[in-house]
Amino acid sequence: MVRRTSLKEADCPVARALDAIGDWWSLLIIRDAFSEARRFGEFQKSLGVAKGILSARLRNLVELGILEIAPASDGSAYQEYVLTEKGRGLFVVIAGLRQWGEEHCYEPGEPHSALIDNETRQPVGRLELRSADGRVLGPLNTSVRLNPMPPAKPSGRP
Amino acid sequence: MVRRTSLKEADCPVARALDAIGDWWSLLIIRDAFSEARRFGEFQKSLGVAKGILSARLRNLVELGILEIAPASDGSAYQEYVLTEKGRGLFVVIAGLRQWGEEHCYEPGEPHSALIDNETRQPVGRLELRSADGRVLGPLNTSVRLNPMPPAKPSGRP
Repeated sequence: MVRRTSLKEADCPVARALDAIGDWWSLLIIRDAFSEARRFGEFQKSLGVAKGILSARLRNLVELGILEIAPASDGSAYQEYVLTEKGRGLFVVIAGLRQWGEEHCYEPGEPHSALIDNETRQPVGRLELRSADGRVLGPLNTSVRLNPMPPAKPSGRP
Repeated sequence: MVRRTSLKEADCPVARALDAIGDWWSLLIIRDAFSEARRFGEFQKSLGVAKGILSARLRNLVELGILEIAPASDGSAYQEYVLTEKGRGLFVVIAGLRQWGEEHCYEPGEPHSALIDNETRQPVGRLELRSADGRVLGPLNTSVRLNPMPPAKPSGRP
């Protein structure tokens, strides 16, 4: 991560979000937490990384307020890691990465996992950014307004 | 980036997407490209990083197929960097990071930039994942189906 301090102070929420997640690779830990991984060994089995590295990343996510430590759900002495409300808020970010990966990172017909709706067992719909009145928005019909300066910059910066 | 090779081969689109973007910090370059930055100097002015680092990141994004090099739009000898279709597909990912950052990375009342709808000049709506028939979905009513194995795992992994 470059320029950690200035990102933390940034007036752009994209930059602060990148800083607050800590590092790219931690999103795979968060993905697994959405998938009911709770214990160190479950994350390690899924991710296949060295214990020391995983331990440092988990600790960092707890410090960032994305995971919290909870007593084991079965009453044993194990610690469990569960997503906080802040961590659960990353659901759409991970879903967006998933959909982009499905579309751009596989050969036609190459198998990959898919996110499905539990009720219909069908794939979820495509993530879309919409206006307050429901129109689908893209880069060309959105702009970044810099605060506290009110005038909007006519561009498609998300 | 840990385990680059295995992420490239991953059957999880989230892992492949992380690998394909290359590094976290590059998302700020992509954010600026959505905001009409096209020339090296424009990215440098926005990001404030050393020329050598920015140059390597831009080259990497071109190799990844996220940016492409185009002749200068004013007929001068400058090179410009423009988003490919693959790059433009990251719009919702960056919008999702922005909304998460707005919600979790600022004190109440602390100023930050905002993404607005050009037509109404109002902030865009909140990104929501929906089912094919329009219900809002979250971690608790979605599951990851592993391919090519058909049975779904009952969890909320996005």
